[in-house]
Amino acid sequence: MPVPAPAMPPARVLMGPGPSDVSDAVRQALARPTIGHLDPAFISVMDEVRDMLQVAFGTRNALTFPVSATGSAGMECGLVNLIEPGDRVVIGVNGVFGGRMCEVARRAGAEVVPVAAPWGEPVSLDALRETLAGQPTALVCLVHAETSTGVLQPLDGLRALCDEVGALLLLDTVTSLGGTPVDLDEHGVDAAYSGTQKCLSCPPGLSPVSFSERAMAKVRGRTTPVQSWYLDLNLLGRYWLGEGGKRAYHHTAPVNLCVALHEALREVLLEGLECRFARHQLHGEALWAGLGAMGLELPVDPAWRLPQLTVVKIPEGVTDAAVRGRLLHHYGIEIGGGLGDLAGKAWRIGLMGAASTPRNILTCLAALGSALQTAGFTPRGDGIAAAEARLGRG
Amino acid sequence: MPVPAPAMPPARVLMGPGPSDVSDAVRQALARPTIGHLDPAFISVMDEVRDMLQVAFGTRNALTFPVSATGSAGMECGLVNLIEPGDRVVIGVNGVFGGRMCEVARRAGAEVVPVAAPWGEPVSLDALRETLAGQPTALVCLVHAETSTGVLQPLDGLRALCDEVGALLLLDTVTSLGGTPVDLDEHGVDAAYSGTQKCLSCPPGLSPVSFSERAMAKVRGRTTPVQSWYLDLNLLGRYWLGEGGKRAYHHTAPVNLCVALHEALREVLLEGLECRFARHQLHGEALWAGLGAMGLELPVDPAWRLPQLTVVKIPEGVTDAAVRGRLLHHYGIEIGGGLGDLAGKAWRIGLMGAASTPRNILTCLAALGSALQTAGFTPRGDGIAAAEARLGRG
Repeated sequence: MPVPAPAMPPARVLMGPGPSDVSDAVRQALARPTIGHLDPAFISVMDEVRDMLQVAFGTRNALTFPVSATGSAGMECGLVNLIEPGDRVVIGVNGVFGGRMCEVARRAGAEVVPVAAPWGEPVSLDALRETLAGQPTALVCLVHAETSTGVLQPLDGLRALCDEVGALLLLDTVTSLGGTPVDLDEHGVDAAYSGTQKCLSCPPGLSPVSFSERAMAKVRGRTTPVQSWYLDLNLLGRYWLGEGGKRAYHHTAPVNLCVALHEALREVLLEGLECRFARHQLHGEALWAGLGAMGLELPVDPAWRLPQLTVVKIPEGVTDAAVRGRLLHHYGIEIGGGLGDLAGKAWRIGLMGAASTPRNILTCLAALGSALQTAGFTPRGDGIAAAEARLGRG
Repeated sequence: MPVPAPAMPPARVLMGPGPSDVSDAVRQALARPTIGHLDPAFISVMDEVRDMLQVAFGTRNALTFPVSATGSAGMECGLVNLIEPGDRVVIGVNGVFGGRMCEVARRAGAEVVPVAAPWGEPVSLDALRETLAGQPTALVCLVHAETSTGVLQPLDGLRALCDEVGALLLLDTVTSLGGTPVDLDEHGVDAAYSGTQKCLSCPPGLSPVSFSERAMAKVRGRTTPVQSWYLDLNLLGRYWLGEGGKRAYHHTAPVNLCVALHEALREVLLEGLECRFARHQLHGEALWAGLGAMGLELPVDPAWRLPQLTVVKIPEGVTDAAVRGRLLHHYGIEIGGGLGDLAGKAWRIGLMGAASTPRNILTCLAALGSALQTAGFTPRGDGIAAAEARLGRG
C-alpha cells in the first residue's frame, strides 16, 4: 500500500466535553525519552504522581494511581473490584454516565438498583434513602460531574446514608477532578475514578483512581477473583505501591503518558487547587452571562451547574451539525454535541483546565454568535459585553 | 506539599523486553496537538492506522485497531470476547504469557486446558493434537513470541488442527509484530493482539488487535454479554469501524498515542516489512555471535530463537542485579531480568524496532563484557569481533 503522509492534527481550541487543551509544557513532557516501566527513574515519577494525585483528590489513600487506560476503564476498575456477583448496588442515574455504570455493574454480576433523577438535576438524598430502604447494600455509586448534562452532584450526607446500609461509596469524578473540589476524604468517599483529558488538561489515555482502606479490605476479602485481570487492584497494588520495597511487574505502564500526567499535575499544584477552582467558576459564569445575553437557554439550574461544562439548548430551527461544523472548520473551535437524550437538542461547551481562559470564552462567543446568525438565529444581545463584564473587564 | 521538579527521564538505550527505543519522529508525533476523538482529522488517522496495522498483521480483517490500553488488555480483549462461560479453551503454556492467558481465560469462565512445553521450547503440534483429542473446543491460544523465554512458536498446521475441533485460533503477537513475520490470514489466525512498545517502537499504552469475520460471528452471536464493557468488541466496532457511516462514541481514545502509532507504522512501512524482518534477524544473529564468543550460554535452540529477544544464562557466581545495575547506571543501557522461572537465572536482551542497530549491539557487548569482568566473570573471547564479523564488518 502507499505509505500515508505523516498525521498532522490541526491546532484546535478544545471546548467540548474533553479532551481539553493541553499546555506546551505537558506536550513536551509527553515527548521526553521513553524509559522502562521498572526503571528507578520511572519509579520516582510514579511516587510523585501518586503524591500529587492524592492532593488533587483530597485524600490520603495509599492506593491512588493512574489506571493504564481511559476513564471508562477507571469506571470498570472501580466496579469490578468492589462488586461480587449478587451484590446489591445502588446507582444514581441522571445522565449517560450513570447509565453506563449500571451496564458495567450488571456485567460484573451485580443486582443493580438505579435511582433515576431527571436529566439536568442531581440525584436527591431523599430518593437515594428511599431506594436504599435500610436494605444491606454493597455499593452506592454516583456521578460527581455528569458530562452528559453538566450537573454537579452534591456530596453532603452521602456518607451517613451509606453507613446506614453498610455500603461503600464510589464516585465518578471524570469531569470534576482538577476543576471542582472533590475532597474524597472529607466526604467519606471510598473509591473514585477520573480521566486525564478533562480538567487536568493532559492527553487522554490514563484514568486516575483512588481507593480507601475500607474499599481495599473488601477487595482483599473477596471470595471470587476480580473478573478483570488487567484491572485487578490486588495485582495493580503490587506494582503501584510495591511489596516489600519492590515493584512487581504486572503490565507495561504507559510511561510517556505518566510523565505527561506528572507535568499536568505540577501545573495543577503550581496554580493551587483553590485558585484553579475559582478560575473555573469565574470563567463558567462569564460564559453563562454571555450565552444568556445572546438569548440562549441554559437548562441546568445555576445551583448545580458545572462551571467547566455548560449545556446550551440549541435554538428552535437551528441545525446542530451546521453550527458545530462552522465552529470547527472556520474557527478551529470544538464544542460538544448532545449525548443520549440530548443528542441534536443541546451543545456542551467545555472550559476545562488549560482551555478555561478569557480568550477562549470571548472567541467562542464571537464565533458562536456569527455561526448562529448564519444558521438563521439572531442573538438577542451582546454576549461578549456581558461576558467581559462578568470577567471584570466591562 | 512542595511541588516536585519536572520529571526528566534520562536518555536510555532500551534493550530489555520492551519498551524499546522510540525514534525522534515518533516522539514528535506524540507531542502534536491533542484533538478530539471524533474530530474528522482524527477519523482519518484512525482509518490510516487500521490500514497500516492490516499490513503489519498480514490481514484483511476489517476489525483491526489499537485497543486503548496496553498489551495485557489486548490479551484480555481477545479472551473475554471469544470465551463464553463453560467454553473449553486450550492454551499453550511455555512461559509467563501463556500462563497469564490461562489466568485471564479462567476469570472469563472458561474450562482451561493448558498444554505445557518446557520453558525455552515451542508448544508441539503433537502435544496440542493430543490435548484437543477431537473434543469440541471453543478456542486455541498460543503465544507467537514468548517474551519471557525468547521462543518463536511455529504456526504451520495450527489452522488444520483447530478446524478438526471447531476452534477459533487466538495468537499473542506482542513481541513478534513488526519484528518477525506474523501473516494472520496466511496462517488462518482468527484473532491476535500485540503491544506498541516492542518491535513497533512506539511508546506503551495501546494494544493493536485484529479479529477475523469468523471470530466476530462468535462475538455477535454470544448468549451472554462480554464481561468487560470497556473491551466489548460489539461496542468498540461501532467506534473504530463506524455504523451507517458514523462513528459512535464509546470512550475517549488516547488521541496522541494513536498519532504516535501512526508515525511508528509509517516507519515500519517505509522500511518495508521484509527489510525490517531481515534487519531483526541479522542483528539478532550478530548479538548471538558476540555473546557466544564471550562464552555466554544461550539456552534457546537457534531453530526457534527470537532474533528480537535473546535469553542469556547468567554465568555461575555472577549477581544479576550487579551487572544490570552497572549497565543501567554506567552506560544507560537497560536489559531485562529473567521473568518467572528464569528470575535471577537469565537476562533478556532486546533488539526491537528502533533499538535493533549495530551500534546498540556493539555498545551492549562492550558494556556487558566490562560489567561481567567487574562481577568476576572473564569473557572467553572477543564478542565485539564476532558480532562485527556477522554484521559483515569483520
